[in-house]
Amino acid sequence: MKIAILPGDGIGPEITAQAVKVLDALGEKFETETADVGGAGYAAHGHPLPAHTLALAKEADAVLFGAVGDFKYDNLERALRPEQAILGLRKELGLFANLRPAILYPELAGASTLKPEVVSGLDILIVRELTGDIYFGKPRGVRECPDGPFKGQREGFDTMRYAEGEIRRIAHVAFQAARKRGKRVTSVDKANVLETFQFWRDVMIDVHKEYPDIELDHMYVDNAAMQLVRAPKKFDVVVTGNMFGDILSDAAAMLTGSIGMLPSASLDANNKGLYEPSHGSAPDIAGQGVANPLATILSAAMMLRFSLDRAEQADRIENAVKSVLAQGLRTPDIYEQGTTRVGTSQMGDAVVRALA
Amino acid sequence: MKIAILPGDGIGPEITAQAVKVLDALGEKFETETADVGGAGYAAHGHPLPAHTLALAKEADAVLFGAVGDFKYDNLERALRPEQAILGLRKELGLFANLRPAILYPELAGASTLKPEVVSGLDILIVRELTGDIYFGKPRGVRECPDGPFKGQREGFDTMRYAEGEIRRIAHVAFQAARKRGKRVTSVDKANVLETFQFWRDVMIDVHKEYPDIELDHMYVDNAAMQLVRAPKKFDVVVTGNMFGDILSDAAAMLTGSIGMLPSASLDANNKGLYEPSHGSAPDIAGQGVANPLATILSAAMMLRFSLDRAEQADRIENAVKSVLAQGLRTPDIYEQGTTRVGTSQMGDAVVRALA
Ligand SMILES: CC(C)[C@H](C(=O)O)[C@@H](O)C(=O)O
Ligand SMILES: CC(C)[C@H](C(=O)O)[C@@H](O)C(=O)O
Repeated sequence: MKIAILPGDGIGPEITAQAVKVLDALGEKFETETADVGGAGYAAHGHPLPAHTLALAKEADAVLFGAVGDFKYDNLERALRPEQAILGLRKELGLFANLRPAILYPELAGASTLKPEVVSGLDILIVRELTGDIYFGKPRGVRECPDGPFKGQREGFDTMRYAEGEIRRIAHVAFQAARKRGKRVTSVDKANVLETFQFWRDVMIDVHKEYPDIELDHMYVDNAAMQLVRAPKKFDVVVTGNMFGDILSDAAAMLTGSIGMLPSASLDANNKGLYEPSHGSAPDIAGQGVANPLATILSAAMMLRFSLDRAEQADRIENAVKSVLAQGLRTPDIYEQGTTRVGTSQMGDAVVRALA
Repeated sequence: MKIAILPGDGIGPEITAQAVKVLDALGEKFETETADVGGAGYAAHGHPLPAHTLALAKEADAVLFGAVGDFKYDNLERALRPEQAILGLRKELGLFANLRPAILYPELAGASTLKPEVVSGLDILIVRELTGDIYFGKPRGVRECPDGPFKGQREGFDTMRYAEGEIRRIAHVAFQAARKRGKRVTSVDKANVLETFQFWRDVMIDVHKEYPDIELDHMYVDNAAMQLVRAPKKFDVVVTGNMFGDILSDAAAMLTGSIGMLPSASLDANNKGLYEPSHGSAPDIAGQGVANPLATILSAAMMLRFSLDRAEQADRIENAVKSVLAQGLRTPDIYEQGTTRVGTSQMGDAVVRALA
């Protein structure tokens, strides 16, 4: 089993190091290889996704990814900016299924900006399609406006699109995930306006016939954004397209107030995957040893479960994380009075101790 | 001055009646004419936007709109469904600028699902472009997938597009609105992924040169969804496209917990406009006399201010609404212990009394 480690930028290297430390402590030898990605890839090799990094990611059984992006790369042309690495990896590796749990740990209920009764015990799973939609659809660009009142002016344009097979496979991922949870799927679309999402809804209804044990409902994306604020605990599994999923999964994560705790998995058709924390590279606190490594450690647990067929090891890590929270250890982002403030590497060490 | 009254479906007729009552009490005679729209338009004339309704809306100086939609029309083909009326009116009347304030009245702070310190005093304005973007872009439809791994399958597709002039005019609306408020504009885009919104950002920056007194910043839509949950009071004016605006304006409205209080205006290039509550037609409570009419009454105030050049009358209505809240009158949607529960028409009467 070979794991590609892509630490990236900002706090990426610090938090990835803690996850590697935890993997090493499991008592099993994983082969790992590290490569530059994002701004670090550009700085060292002139491209955010250098060829050998992509080759390593393809060859490995799983990818553990830190985070990319830093102020210093903000003025590069778009094709060279750090986030192109993540888009490139998704597309090249066929990582079409993004699983983003939004879980509020009972000890951290106070961190949310929402009232405790609205969010305590929150446990929802956002299933975001990750390689289709307006992210990759063509044609796109800036052209002369071909018609209408603005004819002849410049216009920016993009193409939203979903093929039937793309919708089917993400639907299966959502229904199967729901089977292991609350058995309810909410498909979020904009069928009242978009052809793409009327089609999405039709296909969802069709695939649902194979899952009579799962309840399916449909919600417009604007309403979903409202219901996430109003009564988030009513959701179980939410499945949606790439663009809506980008927005809703971040909103759902922020409901918990502790985005430093939330892992994510991006899977291909064979359960190979890329695992990364839901938060970003936080260049403002990079190198200070204060970043929360738990989202990355929990991403490593997802990796063990989904790509490396080691569910027990995943459970061990998840229980160890619960235990350090119960011990009252907190990085600054989740610190509250009465708890013990620790740094990035102390937190990693505590998880390692709790594994024992 | 002629006002078209389009009550629509569900609670639409009840709440619109209260707004008309308040307008009548201002001591000035407005010419009004009422017509069917939405499901009511379909039921009476076979189309959600009957020709004479559209003609009336075009001819009037302003349109006061209730709400559309009802379960009984859910299975109609899309072109005949109630919400097509609102899309048709926006497009036919050129109502490109949607102004949606999200204001949390101090008396109603408890209604929010967010902690009081996060939302009390909230006062943000979402400026949503309303006639462009993926809502109306062509081509769109369901076709045979022309290329890629799903070639030959059916696919749904839509076109996102913004011409320079469309972005310019909504930018001016946002900057001018900011001038009367906190002098800050946040432009929400997805410039890191979409050509349309890289172009949007470029044009925003260009128009901003004419407004050196206004601060402009740019935020990705996923981050904006997070910041609305994390620290909504940091925003002043938010300007964005039609699709992102649909999602973010509903999320922002729900932050207040009292969407029954929030008006909206949709304006053309000459400040002619359509005014409607931000909430929907709530068919489940229609006809019971319990709907909150304040959003519609406040929409009438916006109409007086923006389209009918009667800012003082608008102030009078807004103050009257504040006064009924201070008196402790509440419809069921905003009722809390210790306040006085009233129905739709009692609430309208109370506003009329408070005008005096
Ligand atoms: C960095 C960006 C391209 C990316 C996206 O939009 O998918 C990010 O927001 C995410 O959600 O992983
Ligand atoms: C009914 C629907 C077409 C409409 C929209 O998407 O614009 C609604 O959600 C709104 O925001 O007014």
